[in-house]
Amino acid sequence: MILINIGDELLIGQVVNTNAAFIGQQMALAGFSITDVLTIGDNEEDIRQAVNTALAKTDIVLMTGGLGPTKDDITKKVICIIFQRSLIMDKPTLEHVTQLFAARGMELTETNRQQALVPDGCTVLSNPLGTAPGLWVENDGKVLIALPGVPFEMERLLKDEVLPRLKSRDERHHAIEYRVLQCTGITESGLSDMLVDYERELPAELKLAYLPKPGIIRLRLTGQSDNREELLQVLDEQFQKLKTLTKEYAFTDEDIDLEEVVGRLLVRANKTLATAESCTGGYVAHLITKVPGSSRYFQGSIVSYSNDIKRDLLNVREDNLKRRGAVSEQVVSDMALNAMGLFDVDYTIATSGIAGPGGGTEQKPVGTVWIAIATPVRLITKEFHFGNRTGRQQIVERAAHAALNMLRIAIEQDLNI
Amino acid sequence: MILINIGDELLIGQVVNTNAAFIGQQMALAGFSITDVLTIGDNEEDIRQAVNTALAKTDIVLMTGGLGPTKDDITKKVICIIFQRSLIMDKPTLEHVTQLFAARGMELTETNRQQALVPDGCTVLSNPLGTAPGLWVENDGKVLIALPGVPFEMERLLKDEVLPRLKSRDERHHAIEYRVLQCTGITESGLSDMLVDYERELPAELKLAYLPKPGIIRLRLTGQSDNREELLQVLDEQFQKLKTLTKEYAFTDEDIDLEEVVGRLLVRANKTLATAESCTGGYVAHLITKVPGSSRYFQGSIVSYSNDIKRDLLNVREDNLKRRGAVSEQVVSDMALNAMGLFDVDYTIATSGIAGPGGGTEQKPVGTVWIAIATPVRLITKEFHFGNRTGRQQIVERAAHAALNMLRIAIEQDLNI
Repeated sequence: MILINIGDELLIGQVVNTNAAFIGQQMALAGFSITDVLTIGDNEEDIRQAVNTALAKTDIVLMTGGLGPTKDDITKKVICIIFQRSLIMDKPTLEHVTQLFAARGMELTETNRQQALVPDGCTVLSNPLGTAPGLWVENDGKVLIALPGVPFEMERLLKDEVLPRLKSRDERHHAIEYRVLQCTGITESGLSDMLVDYERELPAELKLAYLPKPGIIRLRLTGQSDNREELLQVLDEQFQKLKTLTKEYAFTDEDIDLEEVVGRLLVRANKTLATAESCTGGYVAHLITKVPGSSRYFQGSIVSYSNDIKRDLLNVREDNLKRRGAVSEQVVSDMALNAMGLFDVDYTIATSGIAGPGGGTEQKPVGTVWIAIATPVRLITKEFHFGNRTGRQQIVERAAHAALNMLRIAIEQDLNI
Repeated sequence: MILINIGDELLIGQVVNTNAAFIGQQMALAGFSITDVLTIGDNEEDIRQAVNTALAKTDIVLMTGGLGPTKDDITKKVICIIFQRSLIMDKPTLEHVTQLFAARGMELTETNRQQALVPDGCTVLSNPLGTAPGLWVENDGKVLIALPGVPFEMERLLKDEVLPRLKSRDERHHAIEYRVLQCTGITESGLSDMLVDYERELPAELKLAYLPKPGIIRLRLTGQSDNREELLQVLDEQFQKLKTLTKEYAFTDEDIDLEEVVGRLLVRANKTLATAESCTGGYVAHLITKVPGSSRYFQGSIVSYSNDIKRDLLNVREDNLKRRGAVSEQVVSDMALNAMGLFDVDYTIATSGIAGPGGGTEQKPVGTVWIAIATPVRLITKEFHFGNRTGRQQIVERAAHAALNMLRIAIEQDLNI
């Protein structure tokens, strides 16, 4: 398979090509192998030549970009030239585009209407998140797939439309299966050292990959074999072994976010939650409320970015602020305990730290974060040092993940899970 | 110029190709135009073929990756095959590698020694930050440059060794310049319709591209010419025209986020800000606090996810909650006005809406969001419909961007900018 990413903004480095990484990951997981990724500009002749060369070399060509409503988007034109098709109006797409604009209270212009034009004979991959549909064109046993370049639209289309079609088209009776285990509270290299023997002893058909994001490492155990039944048995056996080895750090064996794990625990325990945030600036509340249905257990948050607000709205003791400083065990404890009463909830998370780049001192360098969790029966506090080279956003993300993980452990202990 | 990035980790998306973006930026700034970026795996035959094809098509080929000491790094071998060279020991590199290992108290192995082997007749680009030097090979008027794939080593070599050599080699290099204008409050197609005439009348050397993200569209005007001075004049003239045409929607002509634009305005006005958030769940506060130094103007936020908290902590009138519902002009007005007093600030943002997927009604479908901005002199409210098919996170992002933009306009009006 060859991937072609179209866009001048990629060539001049104004945008980093994250689409290539996302598609590479998804294809690898699904067992498809990308041999070349080609990035070219919004130029008709270059696109035509690249697609022709790719189609000569491989059976499946996936393109992103060049499908929007504006003048620089010329992918559809090129598809028509290469396969000698003409553009026709796709009624369902036109309806979708019309509805999308109506829902936003806007009028449909001629340019919008053109979004519904597609090369005749192609399969239209409907795009719920945008106006440009994806296109799937088959010709002479080859497949050309064109997706919009906007990452969230492309990602949705790839998962919902492209991968299922590719899998059902694939004639190899080759089984590919994987399991995901997510860990936190340990570095990638720490985990890797811990799993040296495990990895060495893995059966040849299994492979372990480390996929890190700030504060969290996803372990993916993938297996390939011609015999699905045997593969599943070996995979589950080895996955169980992996879970036992990483027990202390693993928080879920599903491909869901930590905030969703916490949300499920709260629903199960029928308990409520609020946050009192300083350095995380609302990011913990944002993660929690990203989960659909979080209003069942999440009451709200007080983001107290200044000391005045910590004192006035969260009733943090002036004495603690003055003598211990805002980034201290005493202050996060005050925040967590007082938020319980203010929000009338069962659990609270409180954070206070130095996200940088300024504000660090010798005693409390950038990256220092105090976190407190208040539960119906106890108060848990912990100091973290996330390092001062990782950058502001990284520190916020690591702190948020650490806080959610402390809460997860606390609820599990309270529930005796 | 063609860029070839080598590495299996790029194809399977384990690593995002930031090298391509960095090189693209640097080359564009220096006036060199990259036509293709090709990513391939650590495979000798693929690399050989890619380099041969690239050399046939262009004069300068820049490669990254495949120069390290491990088994899968085969770039040097391929260079020797293509140009019929043999590997010779480069004394300065050997000395550098020996010193580097001595400084770390480590012994030099045979594998490390091989790092100092280079194709005969090439120019060695010494790499102060690592063991693998860069290589510059000239043949038949063409240039092949090979750099290590480790980003900070590559960046240093590119700036210190490659760019000066390229510039001195090419006297008549081509200038590429661009300007960025960011708009909000209008769709990509709405903007495109508005700019039909402008785009048609653009001088041939200029090109306009649309780069959308939820609620925001970045317009990039790029120019290419052999005469940089003339190009800059035409570019600035046309950029000015673009700014005038999109005045109503453009919020910055810099490549910075909306929250940073708002932050700069607040610093300039010496004013403070707080938020009272329902459907955005802390996301507005998170965006604001992403900006380093935001503690200068941001006091904090109350995220009132439940009606009880709206009433108890934000003093929203029970009557409004009952008769108008939480998603109403009256409730966001109460939230914005009461937050002013609670946080003792000059400006507040309040949001209340239905982010979905549940909770929509016929009168208030998913995507309905009320936003209020309170300023020292007035209260501004607005209802938005972000559509119910765009997904929860999209609605939250659009609402946050809409709110920040309303605040930006309000501050600009208050300041008479």
